[in-house]
Amino acid sequence: MSYELYYWPTIQGRGEFVRLALEEAGADYIDVARESEGIAMMMRMMDHADHPPFAPPFLKDGETIIGQTSAILLYLGARHDLAPKDPTGGLWTSQIQLTIADFVAEAHDTHHPIGVELYYEDQKDEALRRSAEFRKSRIPKFLEWFETILERNSARGGYLVGSTLTYADLSLFQVVEGLSYAFPKATARALKKAPKVSTLHRAVSERPRIKAYLESPRRIPFNEAGIFRQYPELDG
Amino acid sequence: MSYELYYWPTIQGRGEFVRLALEEAGADYIDVARESEGIAMMMRMMDHADHPPFAPPFLKDGETIIGQTSAILLYLGARHDLAPKDPTGGLWTSQIQLTIADFVAEAHDTHHPIGVELYYEDQKDEALRRSAEFRKSRIPKFLEWFETILERNSARGGYLVGSTLTYADLSLFQVVEGLSYAFPKATARALKKAPKVSTLHRAVSERPRIKAYLESPRRIPFNEAGIFRQYPELDG
Repeated sequence: MSYELYYWPTIQGRGEFVRLALEEAGADYIDVARESEGIAMMMRMMDHADHPPFAPPFLKDGETIIGQTSAILLYLGARHDLAPKDPTGGLWTSQIQLTIADFVAEAHDTHHPIGVELYYEDQKDEALRRSAEFRKSRIPKFLEWFETILERNSARGGYLVGSTLTYADLSLFQVVEGLSYAFPKATARALKKAPKVSTLHRAVSERPRIKAYLESPRRIPFNEAGIFRQYPELDG
Repeated sequence: MSYELYYWPTIQGRGEFVRLALEEAGADYIDVARESEGIAMMMRMMDHADHPPFAPPFLKDGETIIGQTSAILLYLGARHDLAPKDPTGGLWTSQIQLTIADFVAEAHDTHHPIGVELYYEDQKDEALRRSAEFRKSRIPKFLEWFETILERNSARGGYLVGSTLTYADLSLFQVVEGLSYAFPKATARALKKAPKVSTLHRAVSERPRIKAYLESPRRIPFNEAGIFRQYPELDG
């Protein structure tokens, strides 16, 4: 039976972390909200499920519905060899993913520092200030942390955890993609000090299934409705 | 052997979600940074661990170090009967916790909407705007979600998951405590529409171990260095 992924059909957003894991796993899945009537079905499930997700993305596997990106990846990682089987390695992978989720939330708030209910144009002054802080302090701090993890991984294969690819590597790839789209200047500067992160990003992009996915119509292009938005005034 | 909890010694912060779980479990633990030389030890571990936490809190159990509040609680929940043993129930508990973590991050950003490196006084105008949005849209939306979960739990025991207490219940208690301290007016209004959340909050506060903990010097009072801060200008 196919997995059913529920997420907004016109953006990469948080759903993209799940899509990348499903694609790398070669798993059968339906991106439900991109099908006819799919959004209505997504809203019905959020309104009526016994375990209602707070927000998309969520994944349906038979009768099980799982929300929250990090929980979905914990679930998929264990089923598709995208995380170590031992509990310590599994928790470490999840811990990295949770930190990526924090980073993604901060990236989102660069263009929405006041509230998600308001337009960007109505919080642009605050967005300029928040983005300056994000570029100066947060991008370097997070990338330095990933670089440190790659340096300290004694397996030396270039992955974040152990000697094989995990969903955390896929997620870090996506974050570098997004940052490079939204903050090309600031990200290029920060990546100079994180060469192992750059190498991992390239290696993921060249994996056969990921490469095929990125070149397919299943990959939604970045745009200014998603988490990573190219507003040149917020880069520098 | 005792658990070692590493967190800032003068605030409840994110560490409090871990403290509450350890206290309810009756687990032996050392709150390391509150001991002599503890902060230096915490900083050394962040600088030198093979699996360096991005930020406190983190928990040390023998040789295992776990960062990220939600991952720590996933770990403790399984060991101390603070989460269901079945995978679906365990994931659902974690999903609720992850949503609580998102809510807590938003509560933090009401007083720090521009950046964690700046003082509140240097982002007060933005904090006024963000707090107004938080009070109007976010507190009601999150509390309504918790109320819905309590309503749909067929076990009818007043808990979020199944028929017994989980760490998610402890965390929701703490969020209600914090919101009631930081936004007393807005929270009282929102709680009127979430009676089951209020009942659960009270039930947790009356559990013998939690009650003893709250009355002990181990419970650090709320203050204006933590996540939940009482700035009357941000309530209303």
